[in-house]
Amino acid sequence: MLKNIFRSTQNKWKPIIKEMIAVVGKDGVIQRKEELLTYECDGLAQIRQRPAIVVLPRTTEHVAGIVKICHQKEIPWIARGAGTGLSGGALPLPDSVLIVTARMNQILDTDFSNQRIVVQPGVINNWVTTAISGGGFYYAPDPSSQIVCSIGGNVAENSGGVHCLKYGVTVNHVMGLKLVLPDGSIVDVGSPVQEMPGYDLTGLFVGSEGTLGIATEVTLRILKTPESICVQIADFTSIEAAAASVADIIAAGVIPAGMEIMDNLTINAVEDVVKTNCYPRDAAAILLIELDGLKVEVAGNLETVAAICTKNGARSITSAEDIATRSKLWQGRKAAFAAAGHISPNYFVQDGVIPRTQLAAVLQEINALGEEYGYRIANVFHAGDGNLHPLILYDNSTPGAFAKVEELGGQILKLCVAKGGSLSGEHGIGADKNCYMPYMFSEIDLEVMQYVRQAFNPKGLANPEKIFPTPRTCGEAANALDRSTFKDLEAF
Amino acid sequence: MLKNIFRSTQNKWKPIIKEMIAVVGKDGVIQRKEELLTYECDGLAQIRQRPAIVVLPRTTEHVAGIVKICHQKEIPWIARGAGTGLSGGALPLPDSVLIVTARMNQILDTDFSNQRIVVQPGVINNWVTTAISGGGFYYAPDPSSQIVCSIGGNVAENSGGVHCLKYGVTVNHVMGLKLVLPDGSIVDVGSPVQEMPGYDLTGLFVGSEGTLGIATEVTLRILKTPESICVQIADFTSIEAAAASVADIIAAGVIPAGMEIMDNLTINAVEDVVKTNCYPRDAAAILLIELDGLKVEVAGNLETVAAICTKNGARSITSAEDIATRSKLWQGRKAAFAAAGHISPNYFVQDGVIPRTQLAAVLQEINALGEEYGYRIANVFHAGDGNLHPLILYDNSTPGAFAKVEELGGQILKLCVAKGGSLSGEHGIGADKNCYMPYMFSEIDLEVMQYVRQAFNPKGLANPEKIFPTPRTCGEAANALDRSTFKDLEAF
Repeated sequence: MLKNIFRSTQNKWKPIIKEMIAVVGKDGVIQRKEELLTYECDGLAQIRQRPAIVVLPRTTEHVAGIVKICHQKEIPWIARGAGTGLSGGALPLPDSVLIVTARMNQILDTDFSNQRIVVQPGVINNWVTTAISGGGFYYAPDPSSQIVCSIGGNVAENSGGVHCLKYGVTVNHVMGLKLVLPDGSIVDVGSPVQEMPGYDLTGLFVGSEGTLGIATEVTLRILKTPESICVQIADFTSIEAAAASVADIIAAGVIPAGMEIMDNLTINAVEDVVKTNCYPRDAAAILLIELDGLKVEVAGNLETVAAICTKNGARSITSAEDIATRSKLWQGRKAAFAAAGHISPNYFVQDGVIPRTQLAAVLQEINALGEEYGYRIANVFHAGDGNLHPLILYDNSTPGAFAKVEELGGQILKLCVAKGGSLSGEHGIGADKNCYMPYMFSEIDLEVMQYVRQAFNPKGLANPEKIFPTPRTCGEAANALDRSTFKDLEAF
Repeated sequence: MLKNIFRSTQNKWKPIIKEMIAVVGKDGVIQRKEELLTYECDGLAQIRQRPAIVVLPRTTEHVAGIVKICHQKEIPWIARGAGTGLSGGALPLPDSVLIVTARMNQILDTDFSNQRIVVQPGVINNWVTTAISGGGFYYAPDPSSQIVCSIGGNVAENSGGVHCLKYGVTVNHVMGLKLVLPDGSIVDVGSPVQEMPGYDLTGLFVGSEGTLGIATEVTLRILKTPESICVQIADFTSIEAAAASVADIIAAGVIPAGMEIMDNLTINAVEDVVKTNCYPRDAAAILLIELDGLKVEVAGNLETVAAICTKNGARSITSAEDIATRSKLWQGRKAAFAAAGHISPNYFVQDGVIPRTQLAAVLQEINALGEEYGYRIANVFHAGDGNLHPLILYDNSTPGAFAKVEELGGQILKLCVAKGGSLSGEHGIGADKNCYMPYMFSEIDLEVMQYVRQAFNPKGLANPEKIFPTPRTCGEAANALDRSTFKDLEAF
């Protein structure tokens, strides 16, 4: 009997695979179980589901052809870039088609005089800057995973990075998109100039996590490399003093290109692994500040920042202008998540936002929550825009540990929302945090988002079960969302 | 018979007016013909239609109550701010309700430490800066009409201004909105922090010209007043040299707060009316450049800009740091549209965008078009972001003149689109330019926008016949959109 069901499932997929091969060629379809393993999860490795098949298109027409088949046969499909997302946005469903953009990796056009570049979605974030740096330009959004994550994934998740304090997140740098909609039609949104009449569909699509369609060409705004760049590192004996400096620097009218805090646990993890020898191991926290602009401007800001840090009790402030030292200073920050893996068998990274002025108080509350649950929490985050990344350190081999860690993560998110912040700064909601959406949005807020989703994706085939709470994914969490939970929330 | 129809129309409105008075009070409903005259048109005074009634709500609940009645009775409604819009976005329909936000003029909350202010939509743009300047803050978007236009209208049209070159347009400054949707429900979109999961409904709503609902509370981002502000004025003997300087300044990595060009015709009109005595009457064009930032930064940029203008043949460059002279320099620019009324019985202002690098060439083509049609065209525009405002000077008492002027305006817009630009920089599409949308957008582009419109506004009652071409408003233009027209377009 089981064998029969298996055969009938096989039979269902056979003609579909044939049709898909006709679109992308034989080497563009992966169907063997052992090969599918790679695609069971993205960067949220705690949740895994194997797709029925994986398709690797090379062109917009390939993507449109595949999506059209899915539309006709009512097969759910999920787009995946490099698979580095941390919220499970590219998590497949068991009976779905995974459309992987890895082979769509061409830079299609570079136009320095109008400051734009057109790329396919599989182009790696860092390749963009590499391709244009010779012309004196760079691409601003720089997630920590920038040497592996793809532009398509950045668009889906509206990714940030250390430079988003001054330069904004991905949506501020996408000028236009070629899209394949869930019915397989191809549409161009946005324009090469900033001003644009009609609805802002580019802005709507960026950050929609693959639920409205799939981008097959992306026009990005590129920026002139600043005349001068300088990185400062300030060493504090309390994380509160570092946090206070962040608020004071912004209040003084200085907008650094980036402003990051790493706590003592993270500093030591990073020094163990990356050995930068730049981070003082006995500091309670360090503040990394990147200043950019004209030479005179950077010089002036360096002084202002140093004076503020000193006033807040920094033990030392050093700065580096040469590219080698600057890279080294950032290398430690960018390797922080990986380094957490060195000091703990497992870690779970959370991504919440709070108003900058609440930093010190919220960090204390997060530490208290960690103690309550019995887990160490390493803090490394985009302090300038209040985007926290608490890393909960745990051991997955302890039975029930992950459930407890998830609960702790949820408490941290609720705290962020209660402080007037947000459920996600840059990692997206995906499959990981959709249960928490009702904490941030009212029923009618979510209903309005559904209007939009259904306008583009009426059959619900494009990335189902993501962003929005559904009974299936959020069974337990939904049950927990009764009055008493909301009372807990109000108590924060 | 006619009398009977009139009576039956009267009868239709009688119970509706009664219901609306129950929501907003007797002084909140205007129904007398002579009082309705004021509301027949907005800043696009060439097109007029009298609404059935005008309602003046004071609160979100008032607006929701009125919209709910319209929803139930299937009555079209149009939102109107201060009525200064130049594309007829607030043009009423004969059988419609006009919701005027003039009485919703309260500043609800000011939060300096998180750089935001919450206002009702009827608050005048300039009041925002006035309210916060004592705290060292300002609101960046500054349309020329800023002393009379309202924030609600700015949100609907995604207004710009001279400062949008450096600081972006309205959408870049709106953090959140309280909305009344076309079914009368109240929803909050956006968040007080920059990062936000889910669909970007705030970005979608800004610039939707009243077709998706009506904003009843607006949370704006406010900026620190820069340490130093300086205005430069450069005097050129050719408009091409002024345009070349604009491109060179940006290419040199200097982003002025604003960069505006006025041609000889405009200079003389302004000097006749405003008498600034700052603008050289014999200049072919002047370039006004505002630099802001830290003192050292402004000082460095002043030198760079002066050197570029000199290289491009400027006869003189002067600069002013004191607020009195700066205001005087800007006063002339801000009064330019009004001054055009002094040198011509009527004028028609167009609003198109081109890539900055095309400025000189496109201005020549616009002048050639003016000569071909036999009209003088005054040029005054946001040069930094390629946002042109050609003012076509004409005499409405000449039979057929406006039709010819409209045609000339259309030719200018087609030219902008053909050069890779846009139909509108900041005035919106409204009732004026919906016929031209097919020049910029393909059928499927427009269809996708309709998905969104119908998701929010399924009965089509919120601001009908705006933005999108409809057979009724665009009868003739739609007929003209045959192959030969598109061939003409390609020829540009």
